[in-house]
Amino acid sequence: MVCLSQNLCCLKFSMSEGESEGELEYMDVDRKLVDRIAKDSVVWSCFHGLVVADKSYQASGFYPGIGLAHAPFALLPARFPEKEWREASDLAPIINHLVHRVSSDATFLHESFSKSKKLDEFTSRLLDIHSKMLQINKKEEIQLGLHRSDYLLDEKTKSLFLVELKTISSPFAGLSSLVTQLHRYILSRYGKLLGLDSERIPANGALDQYAEALAKAWSEYNNPRAVIMIVVLAEEQNMYDQYLVSTVLNDRYNITTIRKTLAEVDQQGEILPDGTLSVDGEAVSVIYFRAGCTPVDYPSESEWRARLLMERSCAVKCPSISYHLVGSKRIQQELAKPGVLERFLENKDDIVKLRKCFAGLWSLDDSDIVEKAIESPKLFMMKPLRKEGGKNIYGYDVRETLLRWQKRKTIEDAAYFLMQRIFPTISSTVFMDHGLWIKERASSELGIFSTYLRNKDKVIINKQSGYLMRTIGSTLSYGEPVPWGFPMLDSVYLTDEPNNT
Amino acid sequence: MVCLSQNLCCLKFSMSEGESEGELEYMDVDRKLVDRIAKDSVVWSCFHGLVVADKSYQASGFYPGIGLAHAPFALLPARFPEKEWREASDLAPIINHLVHRVSSDATFLHESFSKSKKLDEFTSRLLDIHSKMLQINKKEEIQLGLHRSDYLLDEKTKSLFLVELKTISSPFAGLSSLVTQLHRYILSRYGKLLGLDSERIPANGALDQYAEALAKAWSEYNNPRAVIMIVVLAEEQNMYDQYLVSTVLNDRYNITTIRKTLAEVDQQGEILPDGTLSVDGEAVSVIYFRAGCTPVDYPSESEWRARLLMERSCAVKCPSISYHLVGSKRIQQELAKPGVLERFLENKDDIVKLRKCFAGLWSLDDSDIVEKAIESPKLFMMKPLRKEGGKNIYGYDVRETLLRWQKRKTIEDAAYFLMQRIFPTISSTVFMDHGLWIKERASSELGIFSTYLRNKDKVIINKQSGYLMRTIGSTLSYGEPVPWGFPMLDSVYLTDEPNNT
Repeated sequence: MVCLSQNLCCLKFSMSEGESEGELEYMDVDRKLVDRIAKDSVVWSCFHGLVVADKSYQASGFYPGIGLAHAPFALLPARFPEKEWREASDLAPIINHLVHRVSSDATFLHESFSKSKKLDEFTSRLLDIHSKMLQINKKEEIQLGLHRSDYLLDEKTKSLFLVELKTISSPFAGLSSLVTQLHRYILSRYGKLLGLDSERIPANGALDQYAEALAKAWSEYNNPRAVIMIVVLAEEQNMYDQYLVSTVLNDRYNITTIRKTLAEVDQQGEILPDGTLSVDGEAVSVIYFRAGCTPVDYPSESEWRARLLMERSCAVKCPSISYHLVGSKRIQQELAKPGVLERFLENKDDIVKLRKCFAGLWSLDDSDIVEKAIESPKLFMMKPLRKEGGKNIYGYDVRETLLRWQKRKTIEDAAYFLMQRIFPTISSTVFMDHGLWIKERASSELGIFSTYLRNKDKVIINKQSGYLMRTIGSTLSYGEPVPWGFPMLDSVYLTDEPNNT
Repeated sequence: MVCLSQNLCCLKFSMSEGESEGELEYMDVDRKLVDRIAKDSVVWSCFHGLVVADKSYQASGFYPGIGLAHAPFALLPARFPEKEWREASDLAPIINHLVHRVSSDATFLHESFSKSKKLDEFTSRLLDIHSKMLQINKKEEIQLGLHRSDYLLDEKTKSLFLVELKTISSPFAGLSSLVTQLHRYILSRYGKLLGLDSERIPANGALDQYAEALAKAWSEYNNPRAVIMIVVLAEEQNMYDQYLVSTVLNDRYNITTIRKTLAEVDQQGEILPDGTLSVDGEAVSVIYFRAGCTPVDYPSESEWRARLLMERSCAVKCPSISYHLVGSKRIQQELAKPGVLERFLENKDDIVKLRKCFAGLWSLDDSDIVEKAIESPKLFMMKPLRKEGGKNIYGYDVRETLLRWQKRKTIEDAAYFLMQRIFPTISSTVFMDHGLWIKERASSELGIFSTYLRNKDKVIINKQSGYLMRTIGSTLSYGEPVPWGFPMLDSVYLTDEPNNT
């Protein structure tokens, strides 16, 4: 057996654009090996539940067991410097704590949102529910947070930036754990040949720890007959990621889960005199939202009624309405402003660490920064406050858009914010999709899962809980990287280098 | 929790045709429970590789990882009397031994086939290869048999009948092992509620033992660099059953498997001077046929060339051409004749046990039995010698067909044989197919896997190796049970009763 590390590794890490004839010859050897690794990894996926419902197959998103396909993934794990990996992991409990603190400050929440000249209807409705809970003086004794903080590593500044904080749904805890297992399996088989060590892939306990946190919340609620309810979409291509969590809950903790859409909760749900949420005759201890995060999840008043009903009940909500609101981009902008973190955190080290990642997030009411962005648009990008709120705006389009809005004195600025432009490392990688492999230039985004559980003043869980690496193919369009295609599930290969170059 | 065993068990075992209102009420309770068990079992299947490639999804049979669906299965295991279960299991090593003995008797093989007035072309070609091997005095030192004996239990006579002996391909070792695991899982969760004990499901080591036998054959061949080659169809809906075996070979024994069609073997294969079979540059130690069993697998001369090439090589064939021929119905007819078993077996007990199951198989050149069948057609059925050779003929059609053939003095009789009509128990069961459950009246067929490995005179393995239960929906057509639909994978629930009534 010849060690092909020199040439195969380039598939993931450093393949150059122009290959000499000699290199191409090596590539032919590689192809056969890549074919074998690819086939092995796809078969592994089919035998371990690393699957999604294939959209092209009718009804695959409605019933489990039909129209499955392996989840799209990167064939080999993505290199990531160990120092920054630890930095992101260490932030998890601080962020958990911050979310809880901010969620408890109703004044801060409402003031933050009131600064936007016009709030979108979705956030308004969430705030309405929040206000109603304040009016009835609703207390959430048991608070469960299953969060995910997404980071980009900037190639130029070698810094880690928090680009999103998800406090609701936080998908892929199940599938990402499996991808890590897959990559470890692949490296245990082909590692020597590739010159890669499976031990450099950090363990990923996302699935186990999400299930553990849900189980502990169930246990705190203290009704052995109660179920955990997963709030789902009627059609869900990512259902296996959710079923992985319910399977662990069933098998390890003997906890029954039920799956209900918001409309079903509206039809079948009621609050019993003691505050218990009962859905289709079953007492619900914990509500685990895997739907309800975006406006499209609320096509009618029925869904909003369900949301309000659940919030009024004494079931543990994951998340509560206030946790949900903290995940808003608007709150992240506020937190990025000078002196704001100090309102919620005491530990100065924590503040310094966190601020370092927050740097580079501004709301459009900051006229100084808007001027800077018009001057040097390449250093900024504009992002919609909510993912579905529009496209990212890059480069000279930033200048044009800002100038146009300044001229028109438009109110659209409330739906966007400015972000320091981050240039992640672009590397060659091999993607697996629909049973086939393809070589692609791509960049990666690191998500850190975290779990937080408290009952009144007692913090029961507060920790980093696994990770999600996503690698997205990029093509250069007018000099700007434009992500295309579906993000591929990936895992982390820790390196000693300062960055991924 | 109420024990629903009284009513839910009837879903599998004894549901009556006419249900009273009270029973219907119970059924409503059941439906909810059945829904839950069904959903659990389908999700389990998706996470454990109990899957097939869905025919309705293009290319699903070509590439792994796309268009998967859970394999169709019975929701609960099929009741089967323990005594007859042991009887069938105990026959496995005797049958293994018999197959080897018969395969070594070239005169018997050729004489048996020569009795058919006209041989089908497929068997002729197999016999040609066999003759060629005799001519060049080819010896198979290492012989590997992965067989499956299929039995029906007759409700009237309470007897077990061997209805088929497969000596090539013998599919479902992988998936059947998983179905047993699934049923044990389901009963471990719902057993108390159903009044069923998961311990009554016998362990099913089919997958492990098939892989073990292949690994030991590989080891006997004694070339650590050689691979095991699985001969496959270009399009294969049952590929995951095959991949399960290669996965165990890879993971447990570190043996590489390659998959080749007969056409690819013809294109890429050669015999090296030392007799080694080399395919696409890789030395092949063991050839595991999962294709090549039926005429449709040989659409051109290319496939026959490949078969001959492999037979000429010194690779271990699973099966060799002689083992393949022994699996023919023609040989089973001969073996069923008085005095024939004595030619191959010494142990009188073994002969008695085996003859008991062979009873009821006659070739159409036996004029006494043909007269009996014309007289009492309901006690007989006519079966084609090969599965794809035509439909089974039942009841008065048996009389009509035989009379017509007698009159015409037709030669079609060679393609059919007479079998004692077996009446298996028909029970109500719940089938899972395409994510949904359906209640069906059905009967079951028990397959016993067996493994046999010898090197020259040394028998290395000879044992029963797990099982396959298949349950097939039946409707009554003119008083005759007509199987419809796809056989559902099932497992065994051992009972003390003499039969399944």
